[in-house]
Amino acid sequence: MTAATTAAATAVVNIGSLVTNDPALGDGPLGLLADAAVVFEGDRVAWVGATGAAPAADTAYDAAGRALLPGFVDSHSHLLFAGDRTREFAARMSGRPYTAGGIRTTVAATRAATDAELAANLARFVREMLRQGTTTLETKSGYGLTAADESRALRVAAEQVAGVEEVTYLGAHVVAPEYADDPAAYVDLVTGEMLDACAPYARWIDVFCEKGAFDGDQARAVLTAGKARGLTPRVHANQLSYGPGVQLAVELEAASADHLTHLSDADVAALASGATVATFLPGCEFSTRAVYPDVRRVLDAGATVALSTDCNPGSSFTSSMPFCVAVAVREMGMTPDEAVWSATAGGAAALRRTDVGRLAPGARADAALLDAPSHVHLAYRPGVPLVAEVWRRGERLPGAGGN
Amino acid sequence: MTAATTAAATAVVNIGSLVTNDPALGDGPLGLLADAAVVFEGDRVAWVGATGAAPAADTAYDAAGRALLPGFVDSHSHLLFAGDRTREFAARMSGRPYTAGGIRTTVAATRAATDAELAANLARFVREMLRQGTTTLETKSGYGLTAADESRALRVAAEQVAGVEEVTYLGAHVVAPEYADDPAAYVDLVTGEMLDACAPYARWIDVFCEKGAFDGDQARAVLTAGKARGLTPRVHANQLSYGPGVQLAVELEAASADHLTHLSDADVAALASGATVATFLPGCEFSTRAVYPDVRRVLDAGATVALSTDCNPGSSFTSSMPFCVAVAVREMGMTPDEAVWSATAGGAAALRRTDVGRLAPGARADAALLDAPSHVHLAYRPGVPLVAEVWRRGERLPGAGGN
Repeated sequence: MTAATTAAATAVVNIGSLVTNDPALGDGPLGLLADAAVVFEGDRVAWVGATGAAPAADTAYDAAGRALLPGFVDSHSHLLFAGDRTREFAARMSGRPYTAGGIRTTVAATRAATDAELAANLARFVREMLRQGTTTLETKSGYGLTAADESRALRVAAEQVAGVEEVTYLGAHVVAPEYADDPAAYVDLVTGEMLDACAPYARWIDVFCEKGAFDGDQARAVLTAGKARGLTPRVHANQLSYGPGVQLAVELEAASADHLTHLSDADVAALASGATVATFLPGCEFSTRAVYPDVRRVLDAGATVALSTDCNPGSSFTSSMPFCVAVAVREMGMTPDEAVWSATAGGAAALRRTDVGRLAPGARADAALLDAPSHVHLAYRPGVPLVAEVWRRGERLPGAGGN
Repeated sequence: MTAATTAAATAVVNIGSLVTNDPALGDGPLGLLADAAVVFEGDRVAWVGATGAAPAADTAYDAAGRALLPGFVDSHSHLLFAGDRTREFAARMSGRPYTAGGIRTTVAATRAATDAELAANLARFVREMLRQGTTTLETKSGYGLTAADESRALRVAAEQVAGVEEVTYLGAHVVAPEYADDPAAYVDLVTGEMLDACAPYARWIDVFCEKGAFDGDQARAVLTAGKARGLTPRVHANQLSYGPGVQLAVELEAASADHLTHLSDADVAALASGATVATFLPGCEFSTRAVYPDVRRVLDAGATVALSTDCNPGSSFTSSMPFCVAVAVREMGMTPDEAVWSATAGGAAALRRTDVGRLAPGARADAALLDAPSHVHLAYRPGVPLVAEVWRRGERLPGAGGN
């Protein structure tokens, strides 16, 4: 199908293997097309089909037999922070004791940072992700833990840094140190004054439902208050132990339940029957030496699955969706096709987006070209920076790399 | 210390953390220096010390607080091949049966390739590795399995492709299909006519000592014949099962025994007492879903340990030394410091090189600058392409990337 040529059109031709994620356009769930072309017009996909049938365009890019896929959709990251935790990581991985602050270290550094420092840090990670093919990303607050610090972090993300499309209020990350003796009062803050300050900058509300963080009743209070303010829930669920997080997420129609390291049969059944996407974060298990969840079981039950980086300085400091694909295949029982779908279309579903995560007419012109003939190489060639070119909203990034 | 300025000198200044691998220059086995500078003069390191004390140079490069380490030394790869095995990988990782050729697929494609195709493929991988910070690499034959095909592959590596410094004759990779019924005759070929044809192009001789490949007696015959022709042994040992490979390697004073997935106490003792480096290949266990070896046990016994990619299209198609560092830390009981040492100085030891794998006066000017304040980030930020700049023989590569 062609479109009126009101905007400058670019044809990417000689694509060896194209992942459309549209089964109507090609083979299987990935909608695979060989010897394909895609035409971008302005910020949208205008046409998809065989290279030989591609309509004329203003410019052509020769993919030279390489694979093109939708830009990755990273639906879970924590990039509103300052400082890092190199020493803590090195101690954990070296078997040395480490008694300093953990997450409190990051909270202190984040509170001490200026808006400009927070914005610069976030912008650096957005660039780093974009270079690796991530064209849509979500990020969260959660290292401020006061009304002022949470809201200014969200404001920085919403107003100062380009490329962050999805912003999540996570005041309920952990109980703020000042409220250690009165967690109920902290929940009142999160659902009251802090929510008032944060809601204008966020689309989503999230809670860490876990022993040592927020229990089921507290998480319910947080998410219900957020919904009442027009925010849509997402939940950190069942990361460190079995708990009520998954079923609460499904009950409250959260867009996504994330982590899911410990899943009961009832949790799997809830995910399969509800509208909540099951989001797995392999970087977190990798970097904490946790046992990996069995995603096969969740897929076989029929749930929708997303993969995301969880990029944060404590438990998963990777920003690489290709790395997450490779680890999910190695460790979580996903096939390469399933992992690539979950890192693109799955992430879009977890953000309730239909304009990204696929390459079909009308979708956003967000794509990653691999230095490889197939998307399978994302798992077959782990760790190799295979993303050679990135288009976002139809614009090709300068210097994405490649050989 | 300064050097006569006969060659153009470049000072890399404001290095936040410098890995020298020289305990005389800094802290610990990595010889770490903070706020450091390095002066390259021609293709050598001329000076290492504090930024404030750096001698004048023709040009300066501001590392802006980032980490500099010796270029990686990848001491084990199989890059002399054509074709790939995407379908086989996808089938294995998807739980589907796959009965096509395995290694024979690669042998057939390699024999069918022209010299120019082999050279182009090798050059592509050398570039890919260099972009990821690998400044010294070894590669092997082993997909030709005739005197003509093995020797022409080694000739391509030795004469046609820049950047391959260490070439290994691996006619004894598997028994050639034509000799399936007479493996003894194949060993005669490998130790006779094929050796004569290959020896001029190689420094090393290697053998895959394993059930289904070559047993201890056959491996001994191969290595002994190679030594008689002036080649130094290296051994693929104990990958798929316990066996005689490690002890044979130590007995024959091989430079390195590689894989070591299955080690008896006697194997560990042999490695600790001999001059043979223990080389681990985490990409191989990653990509074949094998159980990881416990490198901690080998380190604690006192052996010298190297890490390498094993880059090949069948069992480990990664070319990323940073990925190998991260997996070795996650899975093999290595600390981040040990893994970085093993990927640099350890690889140099496995190739009996003293000019690479360290940044000290007189060493080669081969270095990788990370987009990170510490070498620990190679494990802390898995999958992220952190290598921002690469110097090889004192020349900075164009477009290595970075943020």
